[in-house]
Amino acid sequence: MRGIFEDELKKLHGKFTEMGINVSEAIYRASKSFIDHDKALAQQVIDHDEAINEEEIKLEDQALMLMALQQPVATDFRRIIIVLKASSDLERIGDHAVGIARESIELKGEHRVSEIENDIAEMTNTVRAMLEEVLDAYVKEDEVGAKKIANANQEIDAAYAQVREKIIQMMKQDAKIITGSTSYLMVASYLERIGDHISNIAEWVVYNKTGHLAELTPDHHPEEK
Amino acid sequence: MRGIFEDELKKLHGKFTEMGINVSEAIYRASKSFIDHDKALAQQVIDHDEAINEEEIKLEDQALMLMALQQPVATDFRRIIIVLKASSDLERIGDHAVGIARESIELKGEHRVSEIENDIAEMTNTVRAMLEEVLDAYVKEDEVGAKKIANANQEIDAAYAQVREKIIQMMKQDAKIITGSTSYLMVASYLERIGDHISNIAEWVVYNKTGHLAELTPDHHPEEK
Repeated sequence: MRGIFEDELKKLHGKFTEMGINVSEAIYRASKSFIDHDKALAQQVIDHDEAINEEEIKLEDQALMLMALQQPVATDFRRIIIVLKASSDLERIGDHAVGIARESIELKGEHRVSEIENDIAEMTNTVRAMLEEVLDAYVKEDEVGAKKIANANQEIDAAYAQVREKIIQMMKQDAKIITGSTSYLMVASYLERIGDHISNIAEWVVYNKTGHLAELTPDHHPEEK
Repeated sequence: MRGIFEDELKKLHGKFTEMGINVSEAIYRASKSFIDHDKALAQQVIDHDEAINEEEIKLEDQALMLMALQQPVATDFRRIIIVLKASSDLERIGDHAVGIARESIELKGEHRVSEIENDIAEMTNTVRAMLEEVLDAYVKEDEVGAKKIANANQEIDAAYAQVREKIIQMMKQDAKIITGSTSYLMVASYLERIGDHISNIAEWVVYNKTGHLAELTPDHHPEEK
């Protein structure tokens, strides 16, 4: 029975990782659609979100089966629950990718600011690298790796604070960019929140090992000094 | 055994509702701190967030105990899992309340726009009413009530789109309000996302009854026409 449980849990982790890879792809495409003003690509991200939501439900069904059929011991329940909790974060990251894609579709400002677009591209690369790392730490149940991810999230927080300040200054100097700049602001804030969700997943990895939910990023929000 | 399980599940629901009430209070205080420029109240919201996070962990511990000790049947697992999923949404709403509180603390613009502040106060009232309704629908396992909540969320989406447009127009007319207006924009977007999380909880209520996760709000984001 133990062997079957471990095998099934491994399958569950495999599905989780797959979902994570799809979500990472969604972030990439959403951000690319925004920077390239590619509304068709943005629409693809929006259409694909339902598949990500379905992955979450399938994970849940599989977890329920595992609980009901394999009669896990108490500590095993935690390992299953964590997959479910972390998959909520993945699903929410997917929603934020959709948020970015919707900004691409709605983008009205004709006046582009390439400096800000570069910052957004860089933030995108950072959160995708973080997501890859957290998926890896997750599968390996690597507590140390998970803690490192929290530091990367502080970088994202700092990048967001900087971009926001830059956007404010630019809007003050040129009223023509105001409409488009609110989109820049929203996209940057989506990326910042994606970083928070990745940190949440990292926290679940630590929780799995320790039974305690360490707040790895006590200062999620960069605005506070 | 059945009787004990039902009693314990009821206790779990009770804790969930309590957490929901605390989260609603956090939204109220955060929004009030923002409108009143009350940094002390904002700090209270930030400090109290840890207690909300702990409630989530306690809910999880209680759920794990219930699973391990009461040996629920397959369908009961779903009812427990849903508490955990929905509590993730409550926790995240609490985080958004913290986001609003941080905007209050950081508020730099001296130039207030009372019209926008009124809109924010109104959005706050709407999301709190929605949260109250979803908690009620949740405890009563009321699928019909849950579906109504999705409609209320569309109101919030529309309110957000309107406020955003208003803020853009005002910034264009008066550069002095730009700094403060980015805070207005962020707070409005936090409230909009709180509405999304409440819709998520409503979706879990429906899922609990039907086993299917209906996307009650296919258009979470109001930007798309």
